[in-house]
Amino acid sequence: MLKCEQECVSFLGSVQLVRIFKVQPIDLTDELNSMEESKETQNHISQRFNAELRALHHQVLGMGGLVEEQLSNAIVALTNQDEQLARRVYTSDYKVNALEVLIDDECTRILVRRQPTASDLRLVMSVIKIINDLERIGDESERIARMALQVHSDPKARFFSLIQHLGGHVQQMVHDALDSFARLDVDTALQVIREDRKVNDEYESIVRQLITYMMEDSRTIPTVINILWVARSLERIGDHARNVCEYLIYYVKGQDIRHTSMQNIEEQAKSG
Amino acid sequence: MLKCEQECVSFLGSVQLVRIFKVQPIDLTDELNSMEESKETQNHISQRFNAELRALHHQVLGMGGLVEEQLSNAIVALTNQDEQLARRVYTSDYKVNALEVLIDDECTRILVRRQPTASDLRLVMSVIKIINDLERIGDESERIARMALQVHSDPKARFFSLIQHLGGHVQQMVHDALDSFARLDVDTALQVIREDRKVNDEYESIVRQLITYMMEDSRTIPTVINILWVARSLERIGDHARNVCEYLIYYVKGQDIRHTSMQNIEEQAKSG
Repeated sequence: MLKCEQECVSFLGSVQLVRIFKVQPIDLTDELNSMEESKETQNHISQRFNAELRALHHQVLGMGGLVEEQLSNAIVALTNQDEQLARRVYTSDYKVNALEVLIDDECTRILVRRQPTASDLRLVMSVIKIINDLERIGDESERIARMALQVHSDPKARFFSLIQHLGGHVQQMVHDALDSFARLDVDTALQVIREDRKVNDEYESIVRQLITYMMEDSRTIPTVINILWVARSLERIGDHARNVCEYLIYYVKGQDIRHTSMQNIEEQAKSG
Repeated sequence: MLKCEQECVSFLGSVQLVRIFKVQPIDLTDELNSMEESKETQNHISQRFNAELRALHHQVLGMGGLVEEQLSNAIVALTNQDEQLARRVYTSDYKVNALEVLIDDECTRILVRRQPTASDLRLVMSVIKIINDLERIGDESERIARMALQVHSDPKARFFSLIQHLGGHVQQMVHDALDSFARLDVDTALQVIREDRKVNDEYESIVRQLITYMMEDSRTIPTVINILWVARSLERIGDHARNVCEYLIYYVKGQDIRHTSMQNIEEQAKSG
């Protein structure tokens, strides 16, 4: 190598060094700033995403509150033969349906925009399923209200007091299911799942009792059949409340406990 | 600048030029190759994704086939008082449940791995909802089978022939709903939705007829109540078949037609 070339290489080295020691610090600052900005942007995105998930959770609770009110009004309308209240439930069902469509849309939007994973995705998946069960609780409440409209002037409607206890039991299940979802509380969810068995037993007992009434006095048959439908609706509402709790446990624990025995559910919930 | 420094800069320039003219063409080839590979990789990914979506569609149809078989066997078991067949339906329900959990898992996996959008996302969302309705058709079929087990030695079970026509009607609805999903056929889906109204009317008429039987002869009450439950299950299965069609229309047309009047549904389906 010529001396000049050696000097050139040396100069080249010093240029590189200058670049390292003089220019790079500036570049690094830029980079750090840009990293800071990108971190900030990410923080913003992450905050916005969290806010969206919180809003989604909140919307489900709003829909749950409306459904609870529909159920409570339907039972009162039936047992008090309150035609006006029954009509209010009947004409408010569209609100529950509209909320289902709205929250479903929000879930799709979150899936497209945020591409959630892990527990965020589980929340969205649970919400998609929970609102379906809430909508069906709304449907059953509307059915009970329609029954109340049919029987509001039926003197035998005193029979409807028979389902008052079952109605209260199921209302409590729906309330607790929504409460467990609000507080992400697996213990309450497990309690609701346990209650479903009791509701089913109570329902079976009411059906047997109603059949006896019909056999004793055939004039009661048309009214008693209506009570049977109401009892069936209440039993189904219990199933839907149980489903809500199963999806809540899936969200919190990441375990799909549908179609599982109570013993297995409790073991899985403890181990998660 | 010293002469030596000038030479150095010139050398530095020529090094850069050499880099531009000698090295870059090689880099470009690499880049083109890598772009080709990335295109190929993307093609592979897209092909695999399409295969996954086809497999998902296929799995739903498999679950649908099983549910159809369960429903058909339950109705035959009931009307022919075939205890063995009823037991088979009763003990096969776990297969439907297992398929629901499996397909649900597959949907979650696709959402995480593929982050689908547009019609791909609509397919996944529809599948999540359709399998829920299929599982409930399976549940209702199991309920009918349990009824068949209860009444297999009941001499009054001849009454069960009363629900044979309704049973056939509902079976056809489920079959057509699955067929419309298999062929992504909106016209068949609309036809099933229209049939649901007829099934509801037939169900109402059966209920009135059954009440008359009970009032005429109170000894028939326990058997007739069982027929009422079966009729109710069939009516619900019709609702689930209708839901499957609504989700299919959402997938194909991108329109959410739940909670919409038949007239609006037809207009939306035509305009989409």
